[in-house]
Amino acid sequence: MYERFWRLRGDKTTIIIPGWQSMSYLSDTSNICWFLEAEFAKEVVRLHKVVGNAVTEGRHIVVGTGSSQLILAALYALSSPDAHEPISVVSAAPYYSSYPSMADYQKSGLYKWAGDAESFDKEGPYIELVTSPNNPDGFRRRSMVNRSQGLLIHDLAYYWPQYTPISSPSDHDLTLFTVSKSTGHAGMRIGWALVKDKEVAKKMTKFIELNTIGVSKDSQLRAAKVLKAVSDSCEQENSKNEESFFKYSYKLMAQRWKQLREVVEAGELFTLPQFSPAFCTFFGQEMDPQPAFMWLKCEGDIEDCESFLRGHKVLTRSGKHFGASPKYVRISMLDTDETFIQLIDRLLAIQERE
Amino acid sequence: MYERFWRLRGDKTTIIIPGWQSMSYLSDTSNICWFLEAEFAKEVVRLHKVVGNAVTEGRHIVVGTGSSQLILAALYALSSPDAHEPISVVSAAPYYSSYPSMADYQKSGLYKWAGDAESFDKEGPYIELVTSPNNPDGFRRRSMVNRSQGLLIHDLAYYWPQYTPISSPSDHDLTLFTVSKSTGHAGMRIGWALVKDKEVAKKMTKFIELNTIGVSKDSQLRAAKVLKAVSDSCEQENSKNEESFFKYSYKLMAQRWKQLREVVEAGELFTLPQFSPAFCTFFGQEMDPQPAFMWLKCEGDIEDCESFLRGHKVLTRSGKHFGASPKYVRISMLDTDETFIQLIDRLLAIQERE
Repeated sequence: MYERFWRLRGDKTTIIIPGWQSMSYLSDTSNICWFLEAEFAKEVVRLHKVVGNAVTEGRHIVVGTGSSQLILAALYALSSPDAHEPISVVSAAPYYSSYPSMADYQKSGLYKWAGDAESFDKEGPYIELVTSPNNPDGFRRRSMVNRSQGLLIHDLAYYWPQYTPISSPSDHDLTLFTVSKSTGHAGMRIGWALVKDKEVAKKMTKFIELNTIGVSKDSQLRAAKVLKAVSDSCEQENSKNEESFFKYSYKLMAQRWKQLREVVEAGELFTLPQFSPAFCTFFGQEMDPQPAFMWLKCEGDIEDCESFLRGHKVLTRSGKHFGASPKYVRISMLDTDETFIQLIDRLLAIQERE
Repeated sequence: MYERFWRLRGDKTTIIIPGWQSMSYLSDTSNICWFLEAEFAKEVVRLHKVVGNAVTEGRHIVVGTGSSQLILAALYALSSPDAHEPISVVSAAPYYSSYPSMADYQKSGLYKWAGDAESFDKEGPYIELVTSPNNPDGFRRRSMVNRSQGLLIHDLAYYWPQYTPISSPSDHDLTLFTVSKSTGHAGMRIGWALVKDKEVAKKMTKFIELNTIGVSKDSQLRAAKVLKAVSDSCEQENSKNEESFFKYSYKLMAQRWKQLREVVEAGELFTLPQFSPAFCTFFGQEMDPQPAFMWLKCEGDIEDCESFLRGHKVLTRSGKHFGASPKYVRISMLDTDETFIQLIDRLLAIQERE
């Protein structure tokens, strides 16, 4: 969806890597995260400052092969090898559908998926994944369990101005971000963690060392260029009379959400979550949340919304994968223009036919 | 160590990636490994054909974030989630020092490190890691346990003409290679697996999906360019009167091994493994093995070779990490010229002093 922006501003983000460059495993052996490229770290700090969505002072940056690897690294770092049982991993439903399998696919003795945070009542330590704005439903979130022995991982992949009003810089113990959601470059597989505790940052680094001996330097260098272009576009907006990346993508999202709400409200088959506007410190005005996913509910008799929509050639992901009712489905709002228009057309046709 | 080659031939391997390219997670959804870049896969097949070190026909290619990730993916793919106990993972000592921690750091219920393959006598299924030529000692290897329920992972990271004579194309069920050892580009974090069984390839792909949702496209594209340049250098060697990458690096290794053997043989403190020359189908003549590591033994009273050498400002890795005696240490043969010369000088000084 953001490809057009990058085509228009392409030159500034084109990267050239000669054959002899960045051949070594190492980047900066004086850093806790010894495979972190300094240029990338610099642009991460700068972008958070420009956007105002995260405190970076007093944080260690750990780079990962996408935020997936960082979630696993965080689970590893926050669990204890000496515990007599795996630590419980919870998240409030509806939760990101990959969390359960990410926590359990290795059958790890360190941590274990324990389901919906809201119904979690086991004593003792636990890890809570707090996704805000939430995937799949787009709502802002805080920790649900809120007990003394809770360790929190804040997955803020969507805490960017095109998706949600920026209320204040996030200031948590362990926060995750990813290039794929902020700028749209999913193919780079680059994410980053802001980590307060030095020992946690060390253990996360150790995890990535054992898992993949570091993170692609080529992609870190390219990500640095892309983040730089985003920060530049924000800082030069007024002087150059060009839209910033976030203004461009906000308008695109706004247009799509408008189209979607019109179609949904034209009939009684479907409903969407309702969001309240809030003041965005980045845009300096009140803005509407416009999540990266629609969390669509089939009303009335339709119990299995995914099957119903598949019957009308609309492929979705059932709410049941997110710990929710099958009356819900998740659909991406970030697909190409062609696919999005087709989706809108098909939803409209369903409304008219039923 | 190979940097000079890439500086000389740099232009051909320089990669330019515009800001809008390879933004998606997906590469080729018709492929089992849906995040594999077609260009990279093509160059992998071509290079193996040019070098003659692996059969690629009837194999699925799975790309990984370095071969580390592929080892973990293979352990995951070859183990069974329904087994009543974790499958044993073994390798003959001296083995790659990371194997034990890679197998155990997640405390997985799927697989578990079970030590030296030679003393392994447990009944039932097991996974054997066969590293050939071996890291740390450089010898060619076959499976050690050799029982009916064994599942083999062949780690052939060093099966390239600069390190060992190529005897025939490897033809195993599951074989791993990596760019870091073949061309020296460790910072790319790109490895690949050649996998016979479709279900194993699918499970490995699933592992990488859950672990990192694919592999950096930027690095895959860059790796494709570098592998292409290597194949080109081999095919054009005669016509262009330029050395192929392998001839260049073979000569460099030969020079280093000659210097090393001279120093070691000048005294009685140290010994090195002795290798027999063998016919190399790639070079078309008999060649000496010249491993990427020296596996140095302290003779006489010195029981802890690592401490002894550290006392003389030579940093090494003790044999005990490789399941072997502390009389041994491993030292890289692939460091920069400066570091290698310093190493040789210090070993010489030790011999003269003691």
